[in-house]
Amino acid sequence: MPNIDHYRSDFIAYLESKEQKKEPVNLYEPISYILNLGGKRLRPVLTLMTTDIFGVDYKQALDAALAIEVFHNFSLVHDDIMDAAPLRRGKQTVHEKWDVNTGILSGDAMLIYSYQLLESYPAATFKQLMQLFSKTALEVCEGQQYDVDFENRTDVSIPEYLLMIQYKTAVLVAAAMKMGAIIANRSSQVQQDIYDFGKNLGIAFQLQDDYLDAFGDPKSFGKQVGGDIMVNKKTYLYLKALELGSTTQQQELEHLFSIKPENPSEKIATVKALYIKTGAVDQALKEIEGYTQKAFSILDQLPIDASKKEMLAQFGTSLMKREV
Amino acid sequence: MPNIDHYRSDFIAYLESKEQKKEPVNLYEPISYILNLGGKRLRPVLTLMTTDIFGVDYKQALDAALAIEVFHNFSLVHDDIMDAAPLRRGKQTVHEKWDVNTGILSGDAMLIYSYQLLESYPAATFKQLMQLFSKTALEVCEGQQYDVDFENRTDVSIPEYLLMIQYKTAVLVAAAMKMGAIIANRSSQVQQDIYDFGKNLGIAFQLQDDYLDAFGDPKSFGKQVGGDIMVNKKTYLYLKALELGSTTQQQELEHLFSIKPENPSEKIATVKALYIKTGAVDQALKEIEGYTQKAFSILDQLPIDASKKEMLAQFGTSLMKREV
Repeated sequence: MPNIDHYRSDFIAYLESKEQKKEPVNLYEPISYILNLGGKRLRPVLTLMTTDIFGVDYKQALDAALAIEVFHNFSLVHDDIMDAAPLRRGKQTVHEKWDVNTGILSGDAMLIYSYQLLESYPAATFKQLMQLFSKTALEVCEGQQYDVDFENRTDVSIPEYLLMIQYKTAVLVAAAMKMGAIIANRSSQVQQDIYDFGKNLGIAFQLQDDYLDAFGDPKSFGKQVGGDIMVNKKTYLYLKALELGSTTQQQELEHLFSIKPENPSEKIATVKALYIKTGAVDQALKEIEGYTQKAFSILDQLPIDASKKEMLAQFGTSLMKREV
Repeated sequence: MPNIDHYRSDFIAYLESKEQKKEPVNLYEPISYILNLGGKRLRPVLTLMTTDIFGVDYKQALDAALAIEVFHNFSLVHDDIMDAAPLRRGKQTVHEKWDVNTGILSGDAMLIYSYQLLESYPAATFKQLMQLFSKTALEVCEGQQYDVDFENRTDVSIPEYLLMIQYKTAVLVAAAMKMGAIIANRSSQVQQDIYDFGKNLGIAFQLQDDYLDAFGDPKSFGKQVGGDIMVNKKTYLYLKALELGSTTQQQELEHLFSIKPENPSEKIATVKALYIKTGAVDQALKEIEGYTQKAFSILDQLPIDASKKEMLAQFGTSLMKREV
């Protein structure tokens, strides 16, 4: 995989340099807390890398990269409230460490701050970045709403599910890359292509996340394997198994997704067997392959040096192999 | 008072014309609900009026006016969650009618939408509007945080209180007016002057609100008279009475603000008497007069026709008389 450490370390140094002790402390401390919880910083790294690939000093993209990261963390703070999640990256979530009101208000301030970070760009670039940013931000909200809605629906279709993960996850990855192309002043076509590369890779990544949640190696997959099945999360695998399964299999699956046994290992094993038997796993792997190939074929068309294509391709491959 | 009905009705027609049935409904219905609860629409009216006064067709300011109104309503939705308020304008609040999660997410979408509305302006104007908008939005969050913090503090100073109401209330009024000057392409000096006019009037208005809450005419004041005293809200009157009162008066006041009797009428009467005896009421009226005069003296210096100054002055006076 390409060496992305310099993007990441420059980004983290920049993030730290922007930190100020600001009043009121109860508004700004939670922001500093969540931004310093770590994480892979993939989205800002993508903005820096894309700017670099398009031949512009990637340091010019630091504010855009930070805007993306602050926005991403805003969405985590508010999502964690909505999911009543106690932990984020192994540490207390903001609403747990402080309270829900602090989580709401600090999140709001982060959203505004992410916009403010783009003010360092000249008016024309600024406007392009802002338009992309607002469109993306609204889609992320829509994705979150679809995710919430789907919990209470039994008729979610695969296209609806794919749109949900596109909005909730992929568009921010896509926008992070497109920002690099905007800062490097590339044509709308190139901007669109790099966006589509990021979007398809993002969808593939999220579908693979669904797959790994059930079939991943417990050692390398960061989360508890079978976690989605335990909490009855309607993933691609579940929806596809329902679509492809026989009536008996459908009924069995629906029953299993209506219970939460204290010891879930038998339930997890049965559901996984159903995912395989119905052909849902095969379909999932095909979809992942399809979106990944789509991303790479878009990359092929990009008017950039072969070495830079190679760098993006390697990054994409490492991402899908969970090596980055 | 000047006729502002045409601004208001044009604004409401525009608001309605922008309404779309959008998916997901659970995200967009609450937005439409809160935006159509009514209210005086004072902030957007101020944007339109200011644009008009600076000699530009006020219809050019409709998007900015709507951005201000959507932002204001975003802050109401999130503040109502934080205050656990059941009612807003006599109707159920968003988190009551739906739930807290819906309130958080729809509020987020409104904040983003308010930014998006400014995209109709050319890049240079857009950037100026955005910078003002983000700065103001962050101050409104800071004001809300100070307000929350003050509830748990016993050492709030008058300057701190004045800063809190400036951020929580006055800066949005000021920004609403400055947006008109930006759209009309006026000099930075003029932009600053109209901003300061709005800010000082906003502070005067909020201080008067504190005064009227205790001493207003129950018939004309919209809210329950004595409401702030009932809930032990530390207003200007309370803080000033503590500052000016004798040790005995201070102790009495602090005791009264530590209890919530079932029948509050005696408590309200005693606190009001203390507000008068300590001289807090006199000081409050002096401050209100001071901020109002400051606003009007800034208005005097503005390079606009006398008739337009007169219109703004009349509007300010009507506002302070609660006639608008």
